Amino acid sequence: MSHFEEETAVTEIAPQRYAAELHRGWRIGKVPNGGYVLAIAGRALRAALPHRDPLTLNAFYLAPTRLGPVECHIEVLRCGRNTSHAMARLYQDGELKVQVTAAYVDFGAMQGESWAAREAPELPPLADCFENRHSPLEFHQRVDLRLASGSGIFTGDGPDRRGEFSGYVQHRDGAPADVLSLLMFADAFPPPAFSLFGVLGWVPTVDLSVQIRAHPAPGPLRASLTSRFLTRGVVEEDGEYWDSQGALVALSRQTALVRVPDGSQ
Amino acid sequence: MSHFEEETAVTEIAPQRYAAELHRGWRIGKVPNGGYVLAIAGRALRAALPHRDPLTLNAFYLAPTRLGPVECHIEVLRCGRNTSHAMARLYQDGELKVQVTAAYVDFGAMQGESWAAREAPELPPLADCFENRHSPLEFHQRVDLRLASGSGIFTGDGPDRRGEFSGYVQHRDGAPADVLSLLMFADAFPPPAFSLFGVLGWVPTVDLSVQIRAHPAPGPLRASLTSRFLTRGVVEEDGEYWDSQGALVALSRQTALVRVPDGSQ
Repeated sequence: MSHFEEETAVTEIAPQRYAAELHRGWRIGKVPNGGYVLAIAGRALRAALPHRDPLTLNAFYLAPTRLGPVECHIEVLRCGRNTSHAMARLYQDGELKVQVTAAYVDFGAMQGESWAAREAPELPPLADCFENRHSPLEFHQRVDLRLASGSGIFTGDGPDRRGEFSGYVQHRDGAPADVLSLLMFADAFPPPAFSLFGVLGWVPTVDLSVQIRAHPAPGPLRASLTSRFLTRGVVEEDGEYWDSQGALVALSRQTALVRVPDGSQ
Repeated sequence: MSHFEEETAVTEIAPQRYAAELHRGWRIGKVPNGGYVLAIAGRALRAALPHRDPLTLNAFYLAPTRLGPVECHIEVLRCGRNTSHAMARLYQDGELKVQVTAAYVDFGAMQGESWAAREAPELPPLADCFENRHSPLEFHQRVDLRLASGSGIFTGDGPDRRGEFSGYVQHRDGAPADVLSLLMFADAFPPPAFSLFGVLGWVPTVDLSVQIRAHPAPGPLRASLTSRFLTRGVVEEDGEYWDSQGALVALSRQTALVRVPDGSQ
């Protein structure tokens, strides 16, 4: 069993109620990564619903989580032949921390046209990308992130002002990425605001939406996380995630709050 | 009172419960426009919360609405000094039709850095843009849409295969766009899939997220709606909305389902 499977496991404790644990290994500072927490909700939703694959999820982060037990309460909103809709609420110590809404399907049964405005991004080989081996983030114990662009803020070259990070991301233990992993990887890159202002403190997520398109092929994912518009401290972060075969497997968008301390620009 | 204000009005009928009516004038075919319905939820949320401005909303559309009475039930999830979080559920005949999650703030109190990767899009003057005067859509009784690109599907020139529509949008009756109007305008353009396949039937929305950034200045909004990746019938639709002064006022993203009838490509 991979670290990801083990550390996102859920146990049914009552109808539509699941217990899980937020484990060490996934924190950004003191707070478990929001994508990791979303993956736990995604696993509970899979357990509760007749369809297996998350098509689109939205999570609002109401309060920071912490290590330890978490309860996930599912409310099924609608079950159709092709799609199930449900809400998941994550509680710690009785406090609602994360509210998730989701539509689940079976990708194997999806039919329809395909088209893309562009191909997967060209990146240098993974071995030529930058790994922050001195990362203070516990999260990098579990997630192997290699930057193709934007690494200047970690190497001393400074912010490149592009509003984007791109690179490769994969499980540190070599486990293949499944669709639930994509929920976690959707929050794995540094906030693009770092490329404007340098490394900042906590950049809280207001909400995160992830669209999943396909089961990823084995191998590292190619990904980019881009911000284009920062308005009085509010920014969007748009992610694209491609598998090793060049298929788009997920899109993400989050709303985040950027606080730049005086003098750090 | 503008058509929009009148036809999105809500009345408190019990604590955290609001009655409203889905009016004629806003339908796409037989179904009230999803953005119009979201604006009603947005108005109920404003009435229920201590903060006035929608920062980010996500709506899952579980079943099509119809003309007539609708009830909106609010559940406040968390109220902080700067931000309120709440859920809104829209019911018709006791059936849950739309589930909304939202964060509200006061834009006047927002502080922080601003930055943009690019400026507002250059568009031809509004008078040179295409208005579909023969639109069969009731929605165009209320919303004045002028296309700067993509009009070929309506003029007989055919799909331009760009996956995008751009142009101007405003209230037909000349009312200025407020932040609640932005929720409606976020679903006002034709589905970009039409630019690939020509005019299709109903393109159902799975979920729609709207980020609002600012109160728009008076005047028509400049906007674009873009799809880049269609995967076995699933597509994202990303919108950008700029006010007449060139300020970005909203971003939108929806997940939609595209069904192309045999032989229409």
